[in-house]
Amino acid sequence: MSIAVCPGSFDPITYGHLDIVRRAARLFEVVVVGVAHNASKSALLKPEERIEVVRGALAEDPDLGSVRVEPVPGLLVDFCRQVGAVAVVKGLRGGADFDGEHPMALMNRHLSGVETVFLPAEQRYAHVASSLVKDIARHGGPIDDLVPPAAAEAVRAAIAHRA
Amino acid sequence: MSIAVCPGSFDPITYGHLDIVRRAARLFEVVVVGVAHNASKSALLKPEERIEVVRGALAEDPDLGSVRVEPVPGLLVDFCRQVGAVAVVKGLRGGADFDGEHPMALMNRHLSGVETVFLPAEQRYAHVASSLVKDIARHGGPIDDLVPPAAAEAVRAAIAHRA
Amino acid sequence: MSIAVCPGSFDPITYGHLDIVRRAARLFEVVVVGVAHNASKSALLKPEERIEVVRGALAEDPDLGSVRVEPVPGLLVDFCRQVGAVAVVKGLRGGADFDGEHPMALMNRHLSGVETVFLPAEQRYAHVASSLVKDIARHGGPIDDLVPPAAAEAVRAAIAHRA
Amino acid sequence: MSIAVCPGSFDPITYGHLDIVRRAARLFEVVVVGVAHNASKSALLKPEERIEVVRGALAEDPDLGSVRVEPVPGLLVDFCRQVGAVAVVKGLRGGADFDGEHPMALMNRHLSGVETVFLPAEQRYAHVASSLVKDIARHGGPIDDLVPPAAAEAVRAAIAHRA
Amino acid sequence: MSIAVCPGSFDPITYGHLDIVRRAARLFEVVVVGVAHNASKSALLKPEERIEVVRGALAEDPDLGSVRVEPVPGLLVDFCRQVGAVAVVKGLRGGADFDGEHPMALMNRHLSGVETVFLPAEQRYAHVASSLVKDIARHGGPIDDLVPPAAAEAVRAAIAHRA
Amino acid sequence: MSIAVCPGSFDPITYGHLDIVRRAARLFEVVVVGVAHNASKSALLKPEERIEVVRGALAEDPDLGSVRVEPVPGLLVDFCRQVGAVAVVKGLRGGADFDGEHPMALMNRHLSGVETVFLPAEQRYAHVASSLVKDIARHGGPIDDLVPPAAAEAVRAAIAHRA
Repeated sequence: MSIAVCPGSFDPITYGHLDIVRRAARLFEVVVVGVAHNASKSALLKPEERIEVVRGALAEDPDLGSVRVEPVPGLLVDFCRQVGAVAVVKGLRGGADFDGEHPMALMNRHLSGVETVFLPAEQRYAHVASSLVKDIARHGGPIDDLVPPAAAEAVRAAIAHRA
Repeated sequence: MSIAVCPGSFDPITYGHLDIVRRAARLFEVVVVGVAHNASKSALLKPEERIEVVRGALAEDPDLGSVRVEPVPGLLVDFCRQVGAVAVVKGLRGGADFDGEHPMALMNRHLSGVETVFLPAEQRYAHVASSLVKDIARHGGPIDDLVPPAAAEAVRAAIAHRA
Repeated sequence: MSIAVCPGSFDPITYGHLDIVRRAARLFEVVVVGVAHNASKSALLKPEERIEVVRGALAEDPDLGSVRVEPVPGLLVDFCRQVGAVAVVKGLRGGADFDGEHPMALMNRHLSGVETVFLPAEQRYAHVASSLVKDIARHGGPIDDLVPPAAAEAVRAAIAHRA
Repeated sequence: MSIAVCPGSFDPITYGHLDIVRRAARLFEVVVVGVAHNASKSALLKPEERIEVVRGALAEDPDLGSVRVEPVPGLLVDFCRQVGAVAVVKGLRGGADFDGEHPMALMNRHLSGVETVFLPAEQRYAHVASSLVKDIARHGGPIDDLVPPAAAEAVRAAIAHRA
Repeated sequence: MSIAVCPGSFDPITYGHLDIVRRAARLFEVVVVGVAHNASKSALLKPEERIEVVRGALAEDPDLGSVRVEPVPGLLVDFCRQVGAVAVVKGLRGGADFDGEHPMALMNRHLSGVETVFLPAEQRYAHVASSLVKDIARHGGPIDDLVPPAAAEAVRAAIAHRA
Repeated sequence: MSIAVCPGSFDPITYGHLDIVRRAARLFEVVVVGVAHNASKSALLKPEERIEVVRGALAEDPDLGSVRVEPVPGLLVDFCRQVGAVAVVKGLRGGADFDGEHPMALMNRHLSGVETVFLPAEQRYAHVASSLVKDIARHGGPIDDLVPPAAAEAVRAAIAHRA
């Protein structure tokens, strides 16, 4: 049984992330979305909120009913070992993205043999990045066609709460 | 009437920025320099100082008399709509620069239809970046051939004041 | 009056090229499509055919009625001088595209002062390249959603004729 | 049953190619190596020779006994449909590699829904490219640690025959 | 006498850094490792610790007995002038690395005439970056094949102390 | 004694090549310019002409009196061994350049231990490439500020002769 992990901070999950999860689910029998704890202060949503929003977003898509969502408390390779994953799946938007991800992919393979499999980002979502979504929301711009409803709501609530 | 915006933090404006503004002014009828508020703590100069220095630098060049300088308080696309701009103009130094700017350019077009127009950076200024200018100045190095006189003075004053 | 040139071999023109022409026409008052003679043997369509197909494709779009199409018999910079263009407009799909175009853009500015203005390729057309279109057509694949009708017809006729 | 295709010209197959096939065989249940016909004059080995050499190389590795080798007579997407593949697997050595492959990956997905899955090239083989192998062999240099024995022999024979 | 500087934060020094120092020592008569002060809070090891660890790592390799290690208190170009260096030596892992280093290399040449000489990173160490080493160590992962013994020990002690 | 090789086709040598040779001569005790035979039909100048033009160009610069020029009849690594070179020196204009050169640099080190040392191209010559020089000359454009006098003359003569 081939298991793959889609890792990320998902602060918040976007339609671009969902597209990668959906495509991974066609290539692998089991897909686990791994939500990095990411203690950095730049995170807008708390880890448990991010997990909850990802779960809500996946629940809206009947094709993704079997995709699990779990926190990644430590190293990604330890998480992969624990869930029995043979591959990590990541999207790529351009060559510089690959150069940025390359050392980590090599390191993860070095540490545990897990492969990193890169999928070219869906063109329709090439502009969708969590950081841009938060920038737009902070200035009251529209984010509803960039992230799922639960994510949009959580982002707006967190921003309103911080203000 | 074709209007373009040259956006940036301008912390401080450099001769590389001025070159892009000058070239934009030959392609578009009206050019507005938009100074991002940029509340990040890493900024050396205050927003109003940065605007003043940009105005001073433009005033020294008779060809740029008609270029306006304005603060960008929120999203760049809102600023563009407000000034009626059809395009944002940015310089590119290499392929990785483009890959870094690409999602934002796509997002801005998605949000408002505004184009981002990329000009290859003038070779003479390929080494001039605001961050390097500040590094050099912090260690007492020469910056007078990298930024206009008013910018050099403001940077040195801000560094002396912080020390 | 600001005049721009959209240069290329257009062997054949694609919907990606048309998108760049359309966007250039919103930024500049006059747009001239310059069809390079390109004597290389790898060209499928003859220069006059390529020009005719471009003209046909533009005629189908009422917004592009004023765009002229002309052969570029020699250097692009000479053509630009002749039509009075201040800028060359090109699409970019990724960082490596920019690195490939950079020396030519610098050279053209060195030779004549003409700017090269880069627009990020529309995401919907990121996969559309003339060379791929010809590959697909050679193997009987569908190209009708990649190139305008006149281009599809010309490509199929040229391939049938060569076979 | 998840089926993947490893496509290429394999002129000749290298240890770098074999590594990608081996890693693909751990991710997918069935792997088919698709040898492009590639009528270009720059090919050193004939299509049937290239297929035979690939088969010989795979036969030497007991883990790859189930990997099939077949010619790709036309479009890669038609071949994928025919063998029922959900994915094409390719190695990447750097960002510019990705930018070069990106349009084709998007095109193939557009034409048939087949995914292109990119694996970072194994570091030990980052220098191994078929074109470099042929260059070295043409000047009598050592290629035995770059390609499998059957490939080295075929390349040397073809070069001796052409001389 | 040709003198080169290998600069870095070395937080901590890795086997990848050591490889570059070793190769630089074959190209230049004298090599000085310059340890940037790097006051940023993200540094794990203190400047004097980093210097000590580098010295320890070099001492273990008889070929590197003549390589000196010194702190870089200010601008790299001032340090180069002081030690009489004609070149700075840096490793490159991919194209985006080069685009990131390019402006600084041009700036340093502009300021003082010192060259920056780039060596392609040894493939075996393409995954080894100080930041990844610290991430792994923070989660109790193995770092002994990534950094020299003294570095591994210092990193683990610093992490234990911070926890 | 440290010896370096500056390899190339030099069809024709440009001011950009000369700049790299000049900078290499400050880093290494002996510099040998290696002119690849390059039997490809796309070469404009014959190998012996290219060598002669390089010799003429170097002779005009008193600092380069000691730089030797020799043909490279076979593999570059064999040439390096023969002249006792420890390094090959190449210029880089951008990240995609590096990604293109990387496999060859790794291969050469694999074959013989010779290093490839990359210098960032001088900004003033970032637009100067032999292929562009020939394109311009074919259409009667000015090349005198791109290549040394002997090169300009040879290019114009070869083009006149072919016409």
